[in-house]
Amino acid sequence: MKIIVDAMGGDHAPLEIVKGAVAAARKRSDLTIVLVGKEEEVKKAAAQCGGKGLPGNVSLVNATEVIDMHDDPASAFKLKKDSSMTVGLNLLKSGEGDAFVSAGSTGALLSAGTLLVKRVKGIRRAAMAPVVPNAKGGMVLVDCGANAECTVEYLVQFAYLGSFYASKAMGLSNPRVGLLNIGSEDSKGDHLRQEAYQVLKEVGENGRLHFIGNIEAKEAIKGGCDVVVADGFSGNIMLKSIEGTASFLGKELKGMFMQGIKTKLAALLVKDGLTAFKDRLNPDTIGGTPFLGLQKPVIKAHGASSARAIENAVYQAEAAVKADLAAEIEANINFMKLDR
Amino acid sequence: MKIIVDAMGGDHAPLEIVKGAVAAARKRSDLTIVLVGKEEEVKKAAAQCGGKGLPGNVSLVNATEVIDMHDDPASAFKLKKDSSMTVGLNLLKSGEGDAFVSAGSTGALLSAGTLLVKRVKGIRRAAMAPVVPNAKGGMVLVDCGANAECTVEYLVQFAYLGSFYASKAMGLSNPRVGLLNIGSEDSKGDHLRQEAYQVLKEVGENGRLHFIGNIEAKEAIKGGCDVVVADGFSGNIMLKSIEGTASFLGKELKGMFMQGIKTKLAALLVKDGLTAFKDRLNPDTIGGTPFLGLQKPVIKAHGASSARAIENAVYQAEAAVKADLAAEIEANINFMKLDR
Repeated sequence: MKIIVDAMGGDHAPLEIVKGAVAAARKRSDLTIVLVGKEEEVKKAAAQCGGKGLPGNVSLVNATEVIDMHDDPASAFKLKKDSSMTVGLNLLKSGEGDAFVSAGSTGALLSAGTLLVKRVKGIRRAAMAPVVPNAKGGMVLVDCGANAECTVEYLVQFAYLGSFYASKAMGLSNPRVGLLNIGSEDSKGDHLRQEAYQVLKEVGENGRLHFIGNIEAKEAIKGGCDVVVADGFSGNIMLKSIEGTASFLGKELKGMFMQGIKTKLAALLVKDGLTAFKDRLNPDTIGGTPFLGLQKPVIKAHGASSARAIENAVYQAEAAVKADLAAEIEANINFMKLDR
Repeated sequence: MKIIVDAMGGDHAPLEIVKGAVAAARKRSDLTIVLVGKEEEVKKAAAQCGGKGLPGNVSLVNATEVIDMHDDPASAFKLKKDSSMTVGLNLLKSGEGDAFVSAGSTGALLSAGTLLVKRVKGIRRAAMAPVVPNAKGGMVLVDCGANAECTVEYLVQFAYLGSFYASKAMGLSNPRVGLLNIGSEDSKGDHLRQEAYQVLKEVGENGRLHFIGNIEAKEAIKGGCDVVVADGFSGNIMLKSIEGTASFLGKELKGMFMQGIKTKLAALLVKDGLTAFKDRLNPDTIGGTPFLGLQKPVIKAHGASSARAIENAVYQAEAAVKADLAAEIEANINFMKLDR
């Protein structure tokens, strides 16, 4: 299997990206990794990875441009045809790789992924679907930022996409799908939610999805469902609120342990537990967020990705290739269309 | 000052409500409290408060009905004319009290408050605006559930309401107002946000509000602004995500400290810090959420309110009366209307 990695995307590119890709390649000789980026810079980064340059299962494709945060997301990949992102996605498109990983601009990756790799026929919009930690392990949050404005059909498709992904990525046989809402009753929320609820209820009754109804953010975090279906606006608000609260409380906790000798001793006594606690909430542990609905796997690693995050994103890309969601979507696409 | 308290609303009514009201009355002889509810039940609860029944500054108004979660929020107060909520709000309306506190159904309280106490003239919708803990102390989140569907004018009015409230309730001279969005750039979010951004930017340039632009949920939690302006749908998602994450992490932390003798010793060593940490996030500490935009203060205490939460909601009601937001809104209402 061949994973293409955008060496130039992200706050710590290219060094952390190259380090992460090299780490994955060293551990997994069965994987091939294609680094795409400015040749000189990637080589310089590779020299800092220990060993003699790039491992044998890592190749390098030169790309002279970089898409950055100042580029217009919608047109960047066209204007910068020799950017690492455009070149990498074209490699994926033409079959010279099985998946693409990038920590670059989310908007640019979404536009470029949609227009170059293309959506599965019948899918209206690609959606971002991270696995977010919750009290029962994790939940797929779909969409969480790709589509600020949604229709009922988008939400219904997100429900299917999230359910397929949770089955494959989390190994759940019948994922519980909830519609993110501000109350659990049928009538809650805005018109979009009320209408989507009725459609999803019918889909559930037909046995195509395990739809459990509306779910409040708090209940989802408690572990009330496996897939949270949201428009990209409120899904993003949920994701960022979880991240923000975890970070805020993490800092408060740190402050508590740093107060004096007694509390520092306490920190030593719970050291292992604290490490596990932090690890649980560390975005680097997960790696990245797939764009569901595209014909081939495209994984967005977060902008601040460390080497560890990139390494994990490579494994996630591998899992996505094995899962072959596109085939599952194609087999079910007729159920995923609304007659409107 | 006279605070009217709905003795029958909430999961732990009437006992916890009566206990909380009595506690406030005992501490503050300058306050008068009017308990509204089923006479016999309130008296029975009062007998469990220690002392000889209700203190001298607490009176009781009988109301034979109770609005519960099964009643239709929009019509409950009309169908149950002798409910504690309807009777209490009518007392407020007719000037027989200065503020009303209820832990009953949010929807029913909003409908009844809007139709009985009425909005300040020119205000399109009342909004819920709790002070939510964040890294810099707290932020006013407006709206957080009263209005699932919003127009640009609602959002602009929420910005003013939140700013007035933050000035008075939090003592801030020039509260930083942010528009909750999924990115900080002007162009981010849906049409509603893009349009609201432009209007708020102009309001800010005219010096009427300290508008700092779009704000992401994560940045707000870090303390990036004092007032978060949101539609009631995404505001509620943010609030519940914060509550859910805090509760989830609190439990994880507890699990960490309960693992063995070493970790239990650690818990003892950080006992004070842990108590302060929990207190910080305990909704009982704040008490309730005001409905901004009504002619008189109506405070929604949370459904699971303990006596302590009700006591704090009484003090919050007192602060709201002193703040006299309605007068400030009236003085500024011409700036709060959009010419559409």
